[in-house]
Amino acid sequence: MNNFDFYNPTRIAFGEGKIAALDTLVPANANVLILFGGESARRTGTLTEVEAALGDRRVQLFGGIEPNPSFETLMEAVSVVQRDGIDYLLAVGGGSVIDGTKFVAAASLFEGDAWNILLKGGSNIHRALPFGSVLTLPATGSEMNKGAVVTRKSLHAKLPFHSEHVFPQFSVLDPTKSYTLPPRQVANGVVDAFVHIVEQYLTYPADAPVQDRFAEGLLQTLIEIGPQALAEPEHYQVRANLMWVATLALNGLIGSGVPQDWATHMLGHELTALHGLDHAQTLAIVLPTMLAERKEAKRDKLVQYAQRVWAINEGSDEQKADLAIEKTRDFFEGLGVKTRLADYQLAAEHIEPLIDSLEAHGMTALGEHNDVTPEVCRRVLHASL
Amino acid sequence: MNNFDFYNPTRIAFGEGKIAALDTLVPANANVLILFGGESARRTGTLTEVEAALGDRRVQLFGGIEPNPSFETLMEAVSVVQRDGIDYLLAVGGGSVIDGTKFVAAASLFEGDAWNILLKGGSNIHRALPFGSVLTLPATGSEMNKGAVVTRKSLHAKLPFHSEHVFPQFSVLDPTKSYTLPPRQVANGVVDAFVHIVEQYLTYPADAPVQDRFAEGLLQTLIEIGPQALAEPEHYQVRANLMWVATLALNGLIGSGVPQDWATHMLGHELTALHGLDHAQTLAIVLPTMLAERKEAKRDKLVQYAQRVWAINEGSDEQKADLAIEKTRDFFEGLGVKTRLADYQLAAEHIEPLIDSLEAHGMTALGEHNDVTPEVCRRVLHASL
Repeated sequence: MNNFDFYNPTRIAFGEGKIAALDTLVPANANVLILFGGESARRTGTLTEVEAALGDRRVQLFGGIEPNPSFETLMEAVSVVQRDGIDYLLAVGGGSVIDGTKFVAAASLFEGDAWNILLKGGSNIHRALPFGSVLTLPATGSEMNKGAVVTRKSLHAKLPFHSEHVFPQFSVLDPTKSYTLPPRQVANGVVDAFVHIVEQYLTYPADAPVQDRFAEGLLQTLIEIGPQALAEPEHYQVRANLMWVATLALNGLIGSGVPQDWATHMLGHELTALHGLDHAQTLAIVLPTMLAERKEAKRDKLVQYAQRVWAINEGSDEQKADLAIEKTRDFFEGLGVKTRLADYQLAAEHIEPLIDSLEAHGMTALGEHNDVTPEVCRRVLHASL
Repeated sequence: MNNFDFYNPTRIAFGEGKIAALDTLVPANANVLILFGGESARRTGTLTEVEAALGDRRVQLFGGIEPNPSFETLMEAVSVVQRDGIDYLLAVGGGSVIDGTKFVAAASLFEGDAWNILLKGGSNIHRALPFGSVLTLPATGSEMNKGAVVTRKSLHAKLPFHSEHVFPQFSVLDPTKSYTLPPRQVANGVVDAFVHIVEQYLTYPADAPVQDRFAEGLLQTLIEIGPQALAEPEHYQVRANLMWVATLALNGLIGSGVPQDWATHMLGHELTALHGLDHAQTLAIVLPTMLAERKEAKRDKLVQYAQRVWAINEGSDEQKADLAIEKTRDFFEGLGVKTRLADYQLAAEHIEPLIDSLEAHGMTALGEHNDVTPEVCRRVLHASL
């Protein structure tokens, strides 16, 4: 195990009916801005329930935060915060709304051009407004971590930032709030959580049996409940477990003390930035070919993944690894998330601009060994056609 | 999964050399009281290393906190705190020192008789001094939770309390600091962590596959590394994994959203209070017979435990459960922790006073079904002779 620091002060209120706890979780004298995405938050009654729980606090709404939240939209929210003396933010939605709220929390108190937050990856954040979240979409883990990704549409740039100042103070996880999600978002959420785990697990052995077993337990659970979550949208226990898995997939725990990869994510971000694919779609395209491309360096963990997660006990190590990668692809396809560039009308001619963009963002030495160069990414994309 | 609240703000600084981080973890202007147990903290150089890391902060020492820390000793520390304007506590030791420090932190700011903290289980704690810990003994998990147990020698009472005000602000986990522990303490630590996990896992199925798999992963890891930790005291990775397992065994995570038992602990506390046995010794005596006594109510999870933790796949459910209990006992014995009352010179005539004491402390309806009555405990103790 490597040395590590772990810190995660987000309070989790988990279960049906927990939105009522907002009354104790949000300060009584807060001047609240509720941030949300599309109209579904209103249509499903979640916004009404949230507003009722907040009682007679001053509350106003800011809707329209997009999937892959944009700098442009978020800066409008910052203007509202500064204009109206907002002192508490409440994200109601999925990872995009929570990521966006993290940015608004930091940008509202940031001196200078807030785009610099992204250019510095958040290292220049020294304070942020306090905020909480009401999660409606199990997927990104943003509800219990200090990271976020923001897209600047005008620059075709999608960049991450991290800061301890943007941990949510609390997150309400009510699985019933996910019942009305479209199947595509549920499937995306399963893929997103799955790949988050893989990025922290499937590297090389590091004498970390607990982190390995936790990651494997999360992956096994996703494999069990992913299809169920689509087949039975109102199965409480399935949605509850999906929500808790997605949160634990990226709250810092399973990644503590072990090497991490994240090359699939970084390459995937370029696909979203240039072509607007859903984040999970990009991961489903890139991961299988990325694993195949780096099979030698990842051999030990690929074999362990094959045996423990997919119960593949026959064949050579090479065969186990290959079959595990195949099963991973089949799992994504089985959820309805396509895994080939061609499925999204992308072809060989789209590859070089993606590589150019990766290089422009400085992503030239990715992965746990810093050896995933643009050339490696080019091969991965060609193999993903 | 049941509804739950999870909150754990303790910062973990993990790895060799991390004591140096005290310089950033403890406020620069703090007036520090270092609390520790016996002379080993000084002899091994840990205290010197801690004092060096604290630089020119005002620091004084309070040693002599016993295993099963006593109210009497801890109140002496409270006097020092109040006399000298101490504003930060630093526990250097194992669970007893950290538990004791939690009590001192709360009692120093408590109005009225501090014994009331124990009588109310901590619900009357409204504030506490901030504190951190440097862990030297992987065992209790106190370094990352809000609970503690304090013994009042004069009353033969050993009582727990819990409060969010007594989370350590940070804990430094340097596995090398455990190298010099006596084998008995290492073995006790393995047993203690093992039983902590079992108390939260081995109840009844609750649609919580992640909590189950996390618990099973921790148990499997303990089974692998427990004997190694004794055989190779300076094997860094073994000690690192033991330390991390013991912390995760009782930091609130695996117990979130699932039923919990704790009958073994409550009965064990009486054995310590009346006869001075090590905490882990009491658990090793009580757990196997407690599981056997309640085999019917725990059948489903006992079979799962047998299969997943001990890889017992042959035989009837009854046989699997029996064999798993037998292997549990053998595991404790193999570590050198005896599992029979007779091994500690206790006999049938000692049982009734233990039951009386349990009743006097109100422990009359224990376990996940509140059906572990004094009569059940009596049978468990007779079976443990």
